[in-house]
Amino acid sequence: MEPDLIAWLRQRLPRHRRLEVGLGDDAAVLRMADGGRSVVTVDMLTEGVDFRLAEVDARRVGRKALAVNLSDLAAMAARPAAAVIALALPRSGGLQLAQELYEGLIPLAEEHDLALAGGDTNSWDGPLVISVTVLGEVTAAGPLLRSGARPGDAIVVTGTFGGSILGRQFDFEPRVREALLLAERYPLHAGIDTSDGLSLDLSRVTTESGCGAVVELDRVPVAPAAQELAAKLADESTPLDHALADGEDFELILAVPPEAAERMLAEQPLACGLKRIGQFIAEPGLWQVDAAGERRPLVPRGYEH
Amino acid sequence: MEPDLIAWLRQRLPRHRRLEVGLGDDAAVLRMADGGRSVVTVDMLTEGVDFRLAEVDARRVGRKALAVNLSDLAAMAARPAAAVIALALPRSGGLQLAQELYEGLIPLAEEHDLALAGGDTNSWDGPLVISVTVLGEVTAAGPLLRSGARPGDAIVVTGTFGGSILGRQFDFEPRVREALLLAERYPLHAGIDTSDGLSLDLSRVTTESGCGAVVELDRVPVAPAAQELAAKLADESTPLDHALADGEDFELILAVPPEAAERMLAEQPLACGLKRIGQFIAEPGLWQVDAAGERRPLVPRGYEH
Repeated sequence: MEPDLIAWLRQRLPRHRRLEVGLGDDAAVLRMADGGRSVVTVDMLTEGVDFRLAEVDARRVGRKALAVNLSDLAAMAARPAAAVIALALPRSGGLQLAQELYEGLIPLAEEHDLALAGGDTNSWDGPLVISVTVLGEVTAAGPLLRSGARPGDAIVVTGTFGGSILGRQFDFEPRVREALLLAERYPLHAGIDTSDGLSLDLSRVTTESGCGAVVELDRVPVAPAAQELAAKLADESTPLDHALADGEDFELILAVPPEAAERMLAEQPLACGLKRIGQFIAEPGLWQVDAAGERRPLVPRGYEH
Repeated sequence: MEPDLIAWLRQRLPRHRRLEVGLGDDAAVLRMADGGRSVVTVDMLTEGVDFRLAEVDARRVGRKALAVNLSDLAAMAARPAAAVIALALPRSGGLQLAQELYEGLIPLAEEHDLALAGGDTNSWDGPLVISVTVLGEVTAAGPLLRSGARPGDAIVVTGTFGGSILGRQFDFEPRVREALLLAERYPLHAGIDTSDGLSLDLSRVTTESGCGAVVELDRVPVAPAAQELAAKLADESTPLDHALADGEDFELILAVPPEAAERMLAEQPLACGLKRIGQFIAEPGLWQVDAAGERRPLVPRGYEH
């Protein structure tokens, strides 16, 4: 439903002069009256959809509610500045639950030097809702957008993919420092975080950039959790399928000019690893190439909102 | 419960250098790395507590969700810049409901030259939740705080009070332009918006300012809706009781140095009206003086979160 609403809003809303980047990227970029630029993003998590308190500690829910926003800032190569937090709490045990949520997110905020600037706390008869808004700052390298990939750019990814539902969906490290370091040292053309699935999020970059992409399947870094999940499910799906289609890895996909990509891959500046998994091409669409060199369409799969 | 959580957070959170104003005022004031200052505030409305969709058009709910945040900016005499909106929508009819919420808030955003910068839209099995975060800018007069009232300052209010539950709770005009105009023309020491009740919100100013206040009862501007509500309820409560204790008027209470107050009241620069209803004093606590000049304690009443 969200894509329908965004399409409607894009038609309905006149473009505002303050918006350097508006609806549809990982975060918005605002021009402030004093000449500065702010990045802003919001994510809401709801009981029963994003978590079940019967199954997961509230501290991990609080941490995740902040982490998904930090991942959006990472996708823009923006520096975190502050967050505000709105809660709808069940009437019974609300204060304790709120404290647990904060206990989970405070260490992550401190790690990223983020000011917790306030919030709104409500009691109601419904289940838990937590909505976090994060403000960030654009660095000298400028905001990284989804729309800047060019044919010939390497597709470079951080970390590994797939099976996050086994635990990483709550405990992932948003790639904020990694994005800032890469944006400082290398020219980057485009970026996105993989919240919905490697292939689906890659297709968002190609769509916004007006190009295509070829993924070399044997280069995709498959997470151990993807192996584990494939074994556990014992269905048709392979670990690679999970790497391509599972959501909530919160890694980065970057479009990097070829020479810079070569240097980056040789230097390997990140502890989480960097891999080149293919290349952006002029021809639209997503394509996969297997070990034998055969090229076929790659259907983007992942979590559709 | 919210005051308990804020008290706990004030202990738990180290003061962050970015926070010029943190938890507990109407909005936070952030120092950005580029030297600018941003104001940020969030409010969440939930079905069954803040509205019932069976009783009120979703457009008015959307408008209110933005308006309460604009009122918080008005309380700081800050200029609106941008908003992001997070929604939890019932699965059935969610898209249409989202469109109606936006149709309600878009005209108010345009009226205040506010950029709608994005959001997060979720479907779930629960009732409607709408969370709006608004960013603003500090003007040359600086942010207006709750903590600046001084003994001798006049208590000046905009508009009229009481009975907002009869309709104004959804259709009120956030006093943004009024606050900006007053802050530009007159020295203001402190401000708050009356979201929870005139006497309760006034007591917040005295508490944060470390002073007291005397309210001259016959000067309190009682709204026609307060008369109507008192007649309708036919209980012990008078229209003045409603003016002092009803929530959601979203007017401004200002602490104004005496000479400036005199000038302001003579000039009457606002269409909604400005009235002096009493004075801040050194002695702590709230006091009321009736027409006969008798002084008694005024118990702060209103909506307790």
